[in-house]
Amino acid sequence: MSSPEIEEVRQRMIAAPGQSFELSSRDSGDRELFPDKKHARKQLQVDAGAIDELQDLLYACRQRALLVVLQGMDTSGKSGVIRNVFAQTSPLGMKVKAFKAPSKEELAHDYLWRVHEAVPPKGIIGIFDRSHYEDVLVVKVRDFAPAEMVEQRYDQINQFEKLLSENGVTILKFMLHIGHEKQGERLKERVTEPHKRWKFNPGDLEDRKLWPDFMDAYETMVNRCSTPWAPWYVIPSDSRTRRNAAIARIVRGTLEDMNLDWPQLELRAEDYDFS
Amino acid sequence: MSSPEIEEVRQRMIAAPGQSFELSSRDSGDRELFPDKKHARKQLQVDAGAIDELQDLLYACRQRALLVVLQGMDTSGKSGVIRNVFAQTSPLGMKVKAFKAPSKEELAHDYLWRVHEAVPPKGIIGIFDRSHYEDVLVVKVRDFAPAEMVEQRYDQINQFEKLLSENGVTILKFMLHIGHEKQGERLKERVTEPHKRWKFNPGDLEDRKLWPDFMDAYETMVNRCSTPWAPWYVIPSDSRTRRNAAIARIVRGTLEDMNLDWPQLELRAEDYDFS
Repeated sequence: MSSPEIEEVRQRMIAAPGQSFELSSRDSGDRELFPDKKHARKQLQVDAGAIDELQDLLYACRQRALLVVLQGMDTSGKSGVIRNVFAQTSPLGMKVKAFKAPSKEELAHDYLWRVHEAVPPKGIIGIFDRSHYEDVLVVKVRDFAPAEMVEQRYDQINQFEKLLSENGVTILKFMLHIGHEKQGERLKERVTEPHKRWKFNPGDLEDRKLWPDFMDAYETMVNRCSTPWAPWYVIPSDSRTRRNAAIARIVRGTLEDMNLDWPQLELRAEDYDFS
Repeated sequence: MSSPEIEEVRQRMIAAPGQSFELSSRDSGDRELFPDKKHARKQLQVDAGAIDELQDLLYACRQRALLVVLQGMDTSGKSGVIRNVFAQTSPLGMKVKAFKAPSKEELAHDYLWRVHEAVPPKGIIGIFDRSHYEDVLVVKVRDFAPAEMVEQRYDQINQFEKLLSENGVTILKFMLHIGHEKQGERLKERVTEPHKRWKFNPGDLEDRKLWPDFMDAYETMVNRCSTPWAPWYVIPSDSRTRRNAAIARIVRGTLEDMNLDWPQLELRAEDYDFS
């Protein structure tokens, strides 16, 4: 059994820019590309190793940055992706930012202010664990901002991401797509399994009650913000292993597509005194 | 003799968005609105006082920020404007940022990264002494970036400023327009007058040699980036007094147009125990 080609994974999971997207057309339990779990796990190991090597190259070249945006409902596995896909990558080459509810200082600025600050510099892989998309997700569902302001944000975000992409930042956006039933199981695990209890937050159950509203907001987000310069990938996430394997494939492919090469430095030993 | 109405100053100095702008049509020595220097000085004092009061209101409301962008050739008076127009405003309500040549860390990010960080929060007047416009001025004239990259920046800047303006930041952009001859005089003063010598930088003479290229870059900048949400004002700056007076009028008018009112707090003394 062979792993799916990277292009195959991309084609299946991308929300093609300019095309209408329906979340209901995507199966959060999709196994077609990775029917065998064990094989997916093996492929993930191989890809995580390749990502590590490509990160070294990215750092040596300092020409580009990679920004990985992770969005998904609670338990969809944002931290699991960070832990597993980048398990072999040196923390020196990574900049991870988890976005929480904004501080008073942050609220006194536009919502992209703290986001721009966190963008990775050239040479670095940045990970956003949640992101500016919260400003069109929870903010929209819970009416934390007027509807007209939220409406303006899709275009503001597209323009912001365009700026980044035109200035050396490659953007990969992953929606971790988990089913309603699966989330219920995982939240319950957080209560029943003692070593998972630290993760339990009763507030997550409040969001769960608004599930259809959140799904609407996710669908609109993907529809409005999957652009040629920063497309959304919708990753079936009911299976942790397949989710990680799919993301690793796409991250690896994206780094390979940068066609980076070790900087050619003209150094001659005879020019230096090593005595 | 009466001072010109604020609207009169604006109309004369704005580069109207959507209209073609020619720098040569603007007289850096224009005195029409302020024929009498002494009167201009008096008006400046009055306006600086009003700006101080309006700043207090801005701070109390915390609904909006004002960002004042100052651009101009050496000796055009950027620091003079800051010193004189905001002479009476409390430093607590101001955030002044002087943009120098970017650091290594800054260069590893897109050019708007450090700019976004410096944007004033709500309640504050921010001043940019030079700004992101250097990235289409000196960077263009001296080929510090490829021409195609510079070309992309006008639209990136417009979109960035649109984001700010849609999120509570009012933007005022002043090009301090000084004549070639006048600059020669002022640079010479920096050599001949002992107490001004600390300001002299031989590098300024290098920029002076590229005067026509700089004027072209300024003209393009105004043409491409005078937008309804962030218009450029071209301020005749051969006379320091008239320059300051004109800017103070416009700043004052802009703050007044925000129609801010003291927050209405429902407080009743009988609800508290002051004994």
